[in-house]
Amino acid sequence: MVYAAILGYGTVGSGVAAVLEENKEMIAQKAGTQISVKYILDLREFPGDPNADKVVHDFEVILKDKDISVVCETMGGTEPAYTFSKKALLAGKSVCTSNKELVAAHGPELLRLARENNCNYLFEASVGGGIPIIRPMNYSLTAEKIDGIMGILNGTTNYILTKMEQEGADFESVLKEAQEKGYAEKNPEADIEGYDACRKIAILSSLMLSKTIHYEDIYTEGITGITAADFCYAKAMSRTIKLLAVSRLTEAGCHVMVAPFLIPDIHPLRGVGGVFNAVFVHSNMLGDSMYYGQGAGKLPTASAVVSDIVDCARHLGKTVMCLWDEEDVKPAPYGDIERRFFVRADREKLCEERARELFGEIETIRPAERLTDYGFVTPPIREADFEAAAGRTAGILSRIRLED
Amino acid sequence: MVYAAILGYGTVGSGVAAVLEENKEMIAQKAGTQISVKYILDLREFPGDPNADKVVHDFEVILKDKDISVVCETMGGTEPAYTFSKKALLAGKSVCTSNKELVAAHGPELLRLARENNCNYLFEASVGGGIPIIRPMNYSLTAEKIDGIMGILNGTTNYILTKMEQEGADFESVLKEAQEKGYAEKNPEADIEGYDACRKIAILSSLMLSKTIHYEDIYTEGITGITAADFCYAKAMSRTIKLLAVSRLTEAGCHVMVAPFLIPDIHPLRGVGGVFNAVFVHSNMLGDSMYYGQGAGKLPTASAVVSDIVDCARHLGKTVMCLWDEEDVKPAPYGDIERRFFVRADREKLCEERARELFGEIETIRPAERLTDYGFVTPPIREADFEAAAGRTAGILSRIRLED
Repeated sequence: MVYAAILGYGTVGSGVAAVLEENKEMIAQKAGTQISVKYILDLREFPGDPNADKVVHDFEVILKDKDISVVCETMGGTEPAYTFSKKALLAGKSVCTSNKELVAAHGPELLRLARENNCNYLFEASVGGGIPIIRPMNYSLTAEKIDGIMGILNGTTNYILTKMEQEGADFESVLKEAQEKGYAEKNPEADIEGYDACRKIAILSSLMLSKTIHYEDIYTEGITGITAADFCYAKAMSRTIKLLAVSRLTEAGCHVMVAPFLIPDIHPLRGVGGVFNAVFVHSNMLGDSMYYGQGAGKLPTASAVVSDIVDCARHLGKTVMCLWDEEDVKPAPYGDIERRFFVRADREKLCEERARELFGEIETIRPAERLTDYGFVTPPIREADFEAAAGRTAGILSRIRLED
Repeated sequence: MVYAAILGYGTVGSGVAAVLEENKEMIAQKAGTQISVKYILDLREFPGDPNADKVVHDFEVILKDKDISVVCETMGGTEPAYTFSKKALLAGKSVCTSNKELVAAHGPELLRLARENNCNYLFEASVGGGIPIIRPMNYSLTAEKIDGIMGILNGTTNYILTKMEQEGADFESVLKEAQEKGYAEKNPEADIEGYDACRKIAILSSLMLSKTIHYEDIYTEGITGITAADFCYAKAMSRTIKLLAVSRLTEAGCHVMVAPFLIPDIHPLRGVGGVFNAVFVHSNMLGDSMYYGQGAGKLPTASAVVSDIVDCARHLGKTVMCLWDEEDVKPAPYGDIERRFFVRADREKLCEERARELFGEIETIRPAERLTDYGFVTPPIREADFEAAAGRTAGILSRIRLED
């Protein structure tokens, strides 16, 4: 029998208890042992809940109980999650977490503490919700040098963009609807400004490099500037707009960015709609591989946490491999990346002739709809050169990067 | 240091040696030990090859060498691969294989031998080439009851269908081109008749059930009857045609089938083009997840074999979990499955009125091209009822199942 404690009985924490109960027998088979929740740490009481009798309010109870070998940290935020995780690891108790903020901020330190104390710090649920991605990177792509990662890593923004495309609706109205349906939070900033995707690509990039990329260093752009008009042009280009988190290893270093991109209709990420997430990995022997599924939600996220508990149960007293050192790496300057840009412009202020002078041989895009503005695609151009040219004119209504 | 032997120095076997050499340092890091190829078993000599001095012709040399802890069986076929694998496992040597015929025919027995001898029988490369799918099912989806698998599991047929769609070409001419380019074998039967996909879905279905589904029991249909005209109708329906291997757990049992299906343009498998493969998994907590990548080819397949070697090196003397018992399960009769069918018919022999009598309220499909035949979609109908109705008329030129 392996005894676990759950820290935080919110959406994910209660999901962990539910998944462990629902699939109990099968999980025991796969773990090679029964897994039982002994404690649930929360400030609240849960009268009537089947796990009400397991609720404790003092973390020390869990810490001092030698029965507990696995702690599920499903609290979110950095404190007290950070302190509790450290204490658990120092006591030789493995920690499984869904907490991307904490992993992005302190992952390599907590991994080191796990190694030093013969236990594990596992965080499958911190990226891509229920999609197996951390474990495939660590356990499956072991014969591969990974040199590129590109993902749709945030379900809220993907839901909004999918709806905008399908309904021709504007950002604000779709956001409002998503909030009413519970797909977007009341304070949606972390999602729509790309901060959530940024933390996730920081984690994946760090695993790719086996070193630490700090999320604060990653250029991040959200989707608040995307309009219904942009989608008309996208359609005319046989493309759609997705918020991508991109990380590429080049000779110049690791280019990392979160931003909306126009991707072609034939792109494998094109079919990733609604709240689904997907991670595209490029490596030197296999080439492209992709991992797709529900990137958020109570049960999918809890399922990933439970898969980590099973992994801990299979490896009691042994640290499983996760190469992620505390050594810092700065992302390479993104200004050097060369790519094409789509520009939507006000013809009165930026005529095609002037656009050609600024950006080179542009290609005009003609959507089916009659729009007051016009759109064009630049030839491949360095990000920095594009920004410099764009700074020399008025009339640019929006600009979106192209991914091929 | 872990010493390995490679059985069969063909495409995959030489790929294993190449991957181990190319990514040597990183693999050593991830395995926690150096991995060295000590022997290569082949009937041929390879003068000039960097591994020429490792070639042996007698399996007993490998079997008797106590240094060897991992054997890569990349011979293909059932014999002598079966005998060699058994002998290796009985001697406590782990076996990693890309051999889907052998895994589909004797997988559970070889897994039992591995358990009894504290070693491993791993077969990541046997399904989906380089795509991580076996390990995600066994290591990642451990909190999940898997109840459905649907995949594009054969690269040759997917290449042919993709080309037929893109070029409006007929099956025979695309097959010929594929053979010239090396994407299809001279004797392409195993691919185009669906036998290869059938063995792979037998393996995945067995893992889903933890029992044995025999490939001989699976209804299998290839792509030789698919025509350029079918793709015209597919386009008019906003669909495309894919050879799918489908396995679904219902109250009636496990429905398994390999056949061409019309899938909607918004389906996540729609974007899986050319030689790529993808496996869609449905499970009770996570819902849908998908795994995508190169399903064949020297280096991708070899990469999967090497990931198995790494797994063996990490678990020397310990059998990793793989629930697949020798107990047989018969697939549920597919005649009971209810679905819609697309039918292309000769109007002279089967008019719309008669079609309506036979199949119920059909929906006529009107492609952009002027074709001599016509097409319609039936309402949902049991497979057996469809076949019975179709048997009562002439004039059916083709029928393809719809997947939604």
